[in-house]
Amino acid sequence: MSTAPSTGNTAVDTDRTALLRELRRHLPEQSILQEPEDMRPYECDGLSAYRELPLLVLMPETVAQVQAALRICSQMRVAVIARGAGTGLSGGALPRSDSVLLSLARFNRIVEIDPLNRYARVQPGVRNLAISEASAAYNLYYAPDPSSQIACSIGGNVAENSGGVHCLKYGLTVHNILELTVVTMEGDILTIGGLAPDSPGYDLLALMTGSEGMLGVIVEVCVKLLPKPERAQVMLAAFDSVDKAGAAVAGIIAAGIIPAGLEMMDNPAIRAAEDFVHAGYPVDALAILLCELDGTNEEVSEQILQVRQLLEQFGATEVRTSRDEQERQRFWHGRKAAFPAVGRISPDYYCMDGTIPRRELSHVLTRMTELSEQFNLPIANVFHAGDGNLHPLILYDANRPGELERTEELGGKILELCVQVGGTITGEHGVGVEKIDHMCVQFQAAELSQFHAVKAAFDPLGLLNPGKAVPTLTRCAEFGAMHVHHGQLAFPDIERF
Amino acid sequence: MSTAPSTGNTAVDTDRTALLRELRRHLPEQSILQEPEDMRPYECDGLSAYRELPLLVLMPETVAQVQAALRICSQMRVAVIARGAGTGLSGGALPRSDSVLLSLARFNRIVEIDPLNRYARVQPGVRNLAISEASAAYNLYYAPDPSSQIACSIGGNVAENSGGVHCLKYGLTVHNILELTVVTMEGDILTIGGLAPDSPGYDLLALMTGSEGMLGVIVEVCVKLLPKPERAQVMLAAFDSVDKAGAAVAGIIAAGIIPAGLEMMDNPAIRAAEDFVHAGYPVDALAILLCELDGTNEEVSEQILQVRQLLEQFGATEVRTSRDEQERQRFWHGRKAAFPAVGRISPDYYCMDGTIPRRELSHVLTRMTELSEQFNLPIANVFHAGDGNLHPLILYDANRPGELERTEELGGKILELCVQVGGTITGEHGVGVEKIDHMCVQFQAAELSQFHAVKAAFDPLGLLNPGKAVPTLTRCAEFGAMHVHHGQLAFPDIERF
Repeated sequence: MSTAPSTGNTAVDTDRTALLRELRRHLPEQSILQEPEDMRPYECDGLSAYRELPLLVLMPETVAQVQAALRICSQMRVAVIARGAGTGLSGGALPRSDSVLLSLARFNRIVEIDPLNRYARVQPGVRNLAISEASAAYNLYYAPDPSSQIACSIGGNVAENSGGVHCLKYGLTVHNILELTVVTMEGDILTIGGLAPDSPGYDLLALMTGSEGMLGVIVEVCVKLLPKPERAQVMLAAFDSVDKAGAAVAGIIAAGIIPAGLEMMDNPAIRAAEDFVHAGYPVDALAILLCELDGTNEEVSEQILQVRQLLEQFGATEVRTSRDEQERQRFWHGRKAAFPAVGRISPDYYCMDGTIPRRELSHVLTRMTELSEQFNLPIANVFHAGDGNLHPLILYDANRPGELERTEELGGKILELCVQVGGTITGEHGVGVEKIDHMCVQFQAAELSQFHAVKAAFDPLGLLNPGKAVPTLTRCAEFGAMHVHHGQLAFPDIERF
Repeated sequence: MSTAPSTGNTAVDTDRTALLRELRRHLPEQSILQEPEDMRPYECDGLSAYRELPLLVLMPETVAQVQAALRICSQMRVAVIARGAGTGLSGGALPRSDSVLLSLARFNRIVEIDPLNRYARVQPGVRNLAISEASAAYNLYYAPDPSSQIACSIGGNVAENSGGVHCLKYGLTVHNILELTVVTMEGDILTIGGLAPDSPGYDLLALMTGSEGMLGVIVEVCVKLLPKPERAQVMLAAFDSVDKAGAAVAGIIAAGIIPAGLEMMDNPAIRAAEDFVHAGYPVDALAILLCELDGTNEEVSEQILQVRQLLEQFGATEVRTSRDEQERQRFWHGRKAAFPAVGRISPDYYCMDGTIPRRELSHVLTRMTELSEQFNLPIANVFHAGDGNLHPLILYDANRPGELERTEELGGKILELCVQVGGTITGEHGVGVEKIDHMCVQFQAAELSQFHAVKAAFDPLGLLNPGKAVPTLTRCAEFGAMHVHHGQLAFPDIERF
């Protein structure tokens, strides 16, 4: 490959024409989009409040093309932002006008399904649900199930370490993948992990998972497949207070039961979902729990009895158990449609994602109600209660002057509250651009510096997805002295909740 | 702190007296060992074929002392080797005459047990079993159980990502820890991970786990605790061929059953164990399986029926189920005493540790029998069959000239065989000094280079545990062109098995 003349140290100086000339030597014409109207669909991901047209969009079809594209960009000092299905909610795939957007959409083949050893080898653009669909013939499935599983791609799932309803029992993406093939910014191929249970050397598989496209470009993923449980049933319990529902969650977990899913919705979320999809939810309940149990026939029967007893003990006003697969799907349908349902009752909503230790549920919900009143913005709550992952939805109207800003401020307060009680600013949506400032709340300078050193070990020029996920210390200083760590405020002049 | 005069760039040049003078300003006299007779107990770990006296032994008692010691060594360019209980089997804590040995033995406090949130916060020198003992009052336990669990310390477990009999169901160390406090070689403190289910930023928790003391010194560990299962029973099945036992393992897993432990022993191992501890093993069997099932009463009852049926279907000549806790302990006693039992029948033995995909069990065992005959060295086999982790024990006599060398050569062939079928050179014992050359077989230059870059991101001067775990590319070149990757030999001039 001939070396392209470098036009300077930063992408801003780069000669787009020279870049195009180099790229065309290695990628077919139809893999390069450069007209604004062609690039428009790529100007944002699921965090659509932020938009920017990229310098170019590349849609390679082979690993060799990805390698060539990255080598050229590396040599010409042009930043690269990888993109899967673009369903991410934190702006991890947000383009920049000085950067190439690398879409992996054409990497959409299921390479191999090995039912005996229970894995599937797939390209990163394969949709999450497509893996389970293709494995169904062997009575196997891929466990992590983000709400967007119809649309989101496995490469993006790995980049964000996606979760989902079933992650309480079956783990996050990181617990369900075996091997990655990654192209570095220099264009080298790394094989990371393997089919064996442990791997010598540093655990780069976990490091790469959730790294938000900052360390390398994923070109193949080998995922674990699980046998479909013999039986799955979901219980719906209504409560006349959110606190009681929270206590029931703690009680179920304390009893040593690990449900396949344990979800909670508050009254605004229940009403919105019921209005939208008619799941049969009790609209007067102040909270409902959805508790899925799966396993063998005997296990599920036994656990249903146990869970029913616990739910009643913790004050459930009503407990229903799905009688058939159709009812089970209906119970879940309301939960899965909760976000769009809220979208129907409010001009705009802002979906938050934070985690807290389970024991803090009641305290955090009370404090959120206070904040909601203080900011005069309603909040609907939907959460993976079992693992303490909250999704408060702040309802607002972007057309009212200042309301978006107030919403973002309230969102920030909620994230700080999560960190203050020992939780985190993101459970499964990633940091991206959305929460980059709040990383300054989550981490001390020593940890952030270590993150930057790890980043430099993979991408010394900082060309992969610049400006996302890990803030510079300067940015943190500008963001202000808002440092909460392990529930302790590092700077005592900050308001305590 | 005053800066000690650096005597040069490498530890070899360092003035030991100047180092001592600096250390004494921050560590009490009784925390510094410098006489050969005091340092003798630290000259090796569990890989006792390798020995060397360190420059000094430090036994700090506080995190501040660890920080001071590391800062001084960093400034004076003296390498540091951290050591837990010294039970490691791959020489990960082997001292060097130019390096300080940092013992964490005095970090032996259980700081906190939180039964509600099910975690224990402990210092790194706490013994693995002590955590379960202290948690028993709450009916909780710590799951990973390496054979050395009476003696080994949790800090060492994290450094080696230790496994054990119960890891098939409950995961390796990496799956059972929540948070680490680490001191970097520069003396900074990093808090890694947290109590929440996911953590933003790069996954340094997994990266640190299994990093063999190369990235930082662990000074606190927060481990997950699990509720003790209501019931646990173990089944013992005898087979008249190793192949049939291997097929039964595959059959059990394929049926969707995840036993709490699934172990296999071949005839030499069975005989040695039975002679030693009288576990009641059938000494004429060519293989036995030990299959532990745990859970609720109903689950265990159901699974015992299922597993018995499968074992018989795969040709077990005898199946026994432990009738009480005493018999369960007795069945396990033979397995847990297998290594010392083999030590009784042979002057010396070399314990290997490799992993293979389960489907390759039969092929690998056949090939190992051939290698055993070819090298004229008996092999006893004990393995975590459920997760494909082999522990072949090569029996030899170090007093016979050349026999140790022949043993190490045979060991090397076995590791290469593991890699060739898609496995790894270590399941749970680590790389250390023992297998460093075989890392050249496991990985390509691109992956090894990436490992070195990650190492430099934590320890740019290369002062933490030098010469272990990750070989230099030069060393690999000297080791020879023995490169097997994904079952493919990279260099076709190498003998194929």
